[in-house]
Amino acid sequence: MENFTFYSPTYFVFGKDTENQAGECVKRFGGTKVLIHYGGKSAIASGLLGRVEDSLKKSGIPYVTLGGVKPNPRSGLVYEGIELCKKEGVDFVLAVGGGSVIDSSKAIAAGTVYDGDFWDFYMGKRIEEALPVGTILTIAAAGSEGSGDSVITKEEGMFKRGASGDAIRPKFSILNPALTQTLPAYQSAAGITDIMAHLYERYLTNTKEVEVTDRLIEALLLTMKHEGPRVIADPNNYEARANIMWAGMVAHNNTCGVGRSQDWNSHNIEHELSALYDCAHGAGLAVTMPAVFKYCMNHDVMRFAKVAVRVWGCQMDFDHPEVTALEGIEAFRNFLISIGMPKNFEELGAKEEDIPKLADILCNGDGRPGYIEGFVKLSEEDCRNIYKMMV
Amino acid sequence: MENFTFYSPTYFVFGKDTENQAGECVKRFGGTKVLIHYGGKSAIASGLLGRVEDSLKKSGIPYVTLGGVKPNPRSGLVYEGIELCKKEGVDFVLAVGGGSVIDSSKAIAAGTVYDGDFWDFYMGKRIEEALPVGTILTIAAAGSEGSGDSVITKEEGMFKRGASGDAIRPKFSILNPALTQTLPAYQSAAGITDIMAHLYERYLTNTKEVEVTDRLIEALLLTMKHEGPRVIADPNNYEARANIMWAGMVAHNNTCGVGRSQDWNSHNIEHELSALYDCAHGAGLAVTMPAVFKYCMNHDVMRFAKVAVRVWGCQMDFDHPEVTALEGIEAFRNFLISIGMPKNFEELGAKEEDIPKLADILCNGDGRPGYIEGFVKLSEEDCRNIYKMMV
Repeated sequence: MENFTFYSPTYFVFGKDTENQAGECVKRFGGTKVLIHYGGKSAIASGLLGRVEDSLKKSGIPYVTLGGVKPNPRSGLVYEGIELCKKEGVDFVLAVGGGSVIDSSKAIAAGTVYDGDFWDFYMGKRIEEALPVGTILTIAAAGSEGSGDSVITKEEGMFKRGASGDAIRPKFSILNPALTQTLPAYQSAAGITDIMAHLYERYLTNTKEVEVTDRLIEALLLTMKHEGPRVIADPNNYEARANIMWAGMVAHNNTCGVGRSQDWNSHNIEHELSALYDCAHGAGLAVTMPAVFKYCMNHDVMRFAKVAVRVWGCQMDFDHPEVTALEGIEAFRNFLISIGMPKNFEELGAKEEDIPKLADILCNGDGRPGYIEGFVKLSEEDCRNIYKMMV
Repeated sequence: MENFTFYSPTYFVFGKDTENQAGECVKRFGGTKVLIHYGGKSAIASGLLGRVEDSLKKSGIPYVTLGGVKPNPRSGLVYEGIELCKKEGVDFVLAVGGGSVIDSSKAIAAGTVYDGDFWDFYMGKRIEEALPVGTILTIAAAGSEGSGDSVITKEEGMFKRGASGDAIRPKFSILNPALTQTLPAYQSAAGITDIMAHLYERYLTNTKEVEVTDRLIEALLLTMKHEGPRVIADPNNYEARANIMWAGMVAHNNTCGVGRSQDWNSHNIEHELSALYDCAHGAGLAVTMPAVFKYCMNHDVMRFAKVAVRVWGCQMDFDHPEVTALEGIEAFRNFLISIGMPKNFEELGAKEEDIPKLADILCNGDGRPGYIEGFVKLSEEDCRNIYKMMV
């Protein structure tokens, strides 16, 4: 195991009706003027936004609102949010939505107290300071509610990039599984896929002797394997939603990722897809991961055999571990298809002729060094090959 | 799943040589005058205390020291520590040791800023305020490095009681697995047992539909089952020590215990043993748990069958689940014996003739209501029966 630090100071309030505690929570962490940042009209139509506003009013906390966050959130709205916060003297950003809304809120929180262009953070500058952020989560997926990460897409060039820092870890996150019950099945499935991707990205490590985190990751994958189909079969299954929601947080606050190298190649390869085609991140991952895993399998066959046996219930082929490894990848792919995820470029809405462009932006765009490197180092040609496997 | 809140804001610094960051860490959390609280001479002899003092000196932080914490820490030293902190104007308590030292430090931290008797907290008053606490952990066992709990024994009456509060959660905890390599095998085994007890106490729940936390607990039990014997076979196995150390933290910071009722009957039954005989808490648990589990098994046979299959590798007897359940309890008991733990009263140093007294203090002592209640409600007679099973 490698040396590490771990810091997850977010206060989690989990369960039914917990959005009514928004005002108390903002107060607990010193907010006196709030920006409520949200996505589309569903937050208004469902009554959620109204309940959150009521809760703030009850606590005597004034607020302004800014809606319009889209999936794969854009830099344009971030600039708008920063202006608004400065103008209105906002000192607390409250995200009401899924990962996109939370990521946009984090960018606004960091940008508001920074003299330069907030995009600097997404070009590698560490975020040291930000307005406090709170979240009311409506989709179990991104894990942004418990992480110090944010991903934003810059309109010019459609670069999708991430930024990090303890300062943008939410002070509190309100997780009410019932809020996710109204999600369309496709979005629920994309969320399930994203959570499983966060687990696989950590599982694929070159660090030896990391049994405790291996086991924790497997535990969460087993949970998703069990609860995912239950949610697709019955969107109103509160208990399955609850198990997925907590799994989604633990999957990404790094409890199960410490002390080990991680992969993130699949995320990087997918980011170019959702940036270009504006597809759901989880759907892109469903097409990307099986291709990446097959391409990289021989780098560590036993690791893929392990997850095949421990999570997917495959029988170990002790004479041909590669058979078991592949069986596990196929089982995962079939699982993703079974919950309604796309299985190839066509179903995703991606185009074969874009592959050279995708691989070029991925490896060379925005200052990248000509390759990507995680579990395996992948050249531009490797990336083209992987994209081709997805066709 | 039940509604819950989760808050684990401790900053963890994990790995080799991390004790040299003590000064920086105290500074990060605003300490300007430190009490270094520790146990016996081993902390001095090993050079650990010297390295911690050097680190504080380098950061320009003055300190006073108070050693002498014994296993099953006593109220007498806590009062002494509180006096010292008040007299010296201490504003940060740094625990260097295992669970006993940390628990004693937490009690001192709470008592120093409280006008009344600190024992009030151990009689049920919630701790709302305390000096900040940091820890440098030398034994993987109690999980106190990541919890808001503390257990102290009051000399008059030998009552062993717990107190809780977010205020006594450590601000930081330094976890260097190498520091645990010098532990005698018996203490290592007792620590392993304590960690597994923290997991079983959470596993035994009456809450339905808690797959995610069930799976996380099983993951950590599997880790302990794998790594425990490796540490007993080779005390210098850093990697096995590291896996156990992180498992011990996650086992008790409640990541895997949220949203579900928990048991803690075994801990309560054991507390009377270590209070009376001053045995190692883990050793007492090794004798207590199998008896409690057998006595309570029929309350939920399928739960015991599940852990038997998923953790202990038993084959499910679908016609007679109670056979599998019992097999799992026996497998756990044999595991504990195999790592060197006592198997009965005699090996623990406990006496059959004390059983009426033990059950009486347990159920009626210090204002208790005549029974204990966790996974199952146990009368004084039940507790006598359980103690008898340990003979």
